Amino acid sequence: MEKVCILGAGSWGSALGLVLAKKGYEVSIWTLSQEQADKINKTKENIDYLPGVLFPNNITLTTSLEEAVLDSKIIVLAVPSQAIRSVSSSLKPFVKDEQIVVDVAKGLERGTGLRLSEVVAEELPNNPYVTLSGPSHAEEVARDIPTTVVVASENLEVAQIVQDMFMTPKFRVYTNPDIVGVELGGALKNIIAFGAGICDGLGYGDNAKAALMTRGIREIGRLGVKMGANLSTFSGLSGIGDLIVTCTSMHSRNRRAGILIGQGKSLEETLAEVKMVVEGITATEVAYDVSKKLGIDMPITSAIYSVLHEGANPNEVVADLMMRNKTHEIEEVVEDKLGF
Amino acid sequence: MEKVCILGAGSWGSALGLVLAKKGYEVSIWTLSQEQADKINKTKENIDYLPGVLFPNNITLTTSLEEAVLDSKIIVLAVPSQAIRSVSSSLKPFVKDEQIVVDVAKGLERGTGLRLSEVVAEELPNNPYVTLSGPSHAEEVARDIPTTVVVASENLEVAQIVQDMFMTPKFRVYTNPDIVGVELGGALKNIIAFGAGICDGLGYGDNAKAALMTRGIREIGRLGVKMGANLSTFSGLSGIGDLIVTCTSMHSRNRRAGILIGQGKSLEETLAEVKMVVEGITATEVAYDVSKKLGIDMPITSAIYSVLHEGANPNEVVADLMMRNKTHEIEEVVEDKLGF
Repeated sequence: MEKVCILGAGSWGSALGLVLAKKGYEVSIWTLSQEQADKINKTKENIDYLPGVLFPNNITLTTSLEEAVLDSKIIVLAVPSQAIRSVSSSLKPFVKDEQIVVDVAKGLERGTGLRLSEVVAEELPNNPYVTLSGPSHAEEVARDIPTTVVVASENLEVAQIVQDMFMTPKFRVYTNPDIVGVELGGALKNIIAFGAGICDGLGYGDNAKAALMTRGIREIGRLGVKMGANLSTFSGLSGIGDLIVTCTSMHSRNRRAGILIGQGKSLEETLAEVKMVVEGITATEVAYDVSKKLGIDMPITSAIYSVLHEGANPNEVVADLMMRNKTHEIEEVVEDKLGF
Repeated sequence: MEKVCILGAGSWGSALGLVLAKKGYEVSIWTLSQEQADKINKTKENIDYLPGVLFPNNITLTTSLEEAVLDSKIIVLAVPSQAIRSVSSSLKPFVKDEQIVVDVAKGLERGTGLRLSEVVAEELPNNPYVTLSGPSHAEEVARDIPTTVVVASENLEVAQIVQDMFMTPKFRVYTNPDIVGVELGGALKNIIAFGAGICDGLGYGDNAKAALMTRGIREIGRLGVKMGANLSTFSGLSGIGDLIVTCTSMHSRNRRAGILIGQGKSLEETLAEVKMVVEGITATEVAYDVSKKLGIDMPITSAIYSVLHEGANPNEVVADLMMRNKTHEIEEVVEDKLGF
């Protein structure tokens, strides 16, 4: 049977490894930690990330990138977004041009603001590239609870190969040629998840959060179109679909970080408490800069930016958002239609 | 100060009465029950629907429709959707042509499948009409937790009058001229809320529910466009916004009914247990019929219809939905763009 490799042994990498292993692929999962590799190979369980899920025998953990990549039809990048560049770079000595790189991380590179496909293209310019995104808690995928995702690529044939490899009765895969939209949806939804957390921290309710998500995906769509995406992608699985799952999940560290900010903690205190990269903060900075450059009105993003970097009070910022001049919902709709 | 009346003393009518009363309007709330009217007038609390919320002195309950309507600038219809026709008809002897009717019920008339604006137009053809919709749990509105809604009317000036009357720092009102889209969003989202309940009843997770909501609003949008709506309205507050609130709320009886169906109960058993009108069932029937007539593909609605009326097994139906031919997300996007 064909071999595949997953780089990264977190919950998402492990869950996708399970999907492929159950379809019969030989799955090699690469991790930096020899201890983690030994433990999973022995116990057949990733106790830290997917407790209670049995790994079949055709999943093997390894700490050798060379061994993982050798003869793999696809190379799944399941490391944190800020590690995508270094891992891609480390692959150079082993990778063959026909191997398909499948990115499943979401985010923008800090500092450069690049999409992850752009980061990978700089490091591995000759490999076909696919991104996989959508509303998909790893825990549910690992337990065969029905899930749908999107794969996007500039090359539809490559996307279809990846679609066929992952598709199961419980894991439904759509294709979408709009890689820019799919990547931006996955990265920028974290702004809104962070904002949803702020709302929760302020003690707001479901009405405000639903409004934030609705207006949020719309302003992200406006920016996305300017950056080359198809507006409709943002109303799809990798846009509003993923946003819904993220904003209603307690697993999201973007949302958890937002809750702390909403409760009145400073950015420094929040980062110290969350102890992990908060993608929504990077995404807010990038989106804010780009929106200023391109002249796009992004009231929610600007409000969050002002809380993060200009010392604005979250409560006052929300009040401001509510009290903007009364407007017609449809004006924006008309703008959207024109493609502005 | 100007007088307004609210017909219906449930949670939503009461909450909207509170919004207007806090702005200084004389609010007359009409209810059928003399006992309820006396109790609220005496205790200043609607204990059954909004426990713990104090009614100010400028809210008065009455059982006289004539008294409520007399000199009211707007007449807010806050009765269940299936009572809109009879209440509108009862108004005929008292109503003056310049009084604005504001419908806040959501649904389609059983039997006729008419939108509520069409029902009211048949009974009160001379009155200006506005519908108010959006993600708005009454309990949150009554407690001044930030909320945004949309008012829609064929007459923008009338919509703006209603917008100005309701707008507060915590209750933000947008206008939208697409009354068909706003009404259909509010009515047809109940199909998806019902489907979300089925998913919950089957033990599915957040991934499947987010996918259902994403694909669901899309097929509703397709039908809506054929029925004269603007597609973009479905990605707004009265579309996806309201859908998000409804699908994640335990208050929704559409969702509760779906849970029972998902757990294997029959339609008869479910209706007996819920003991209330389940709008999602009517909406499914109407949407199914119209989609067949107009040749619109509505896989989720059809699946729910087959569970309700053709004895299909919910579990198998979801499996079928998941296993439809693998498709491109974007095909549908392209279709949407064409407006078909």
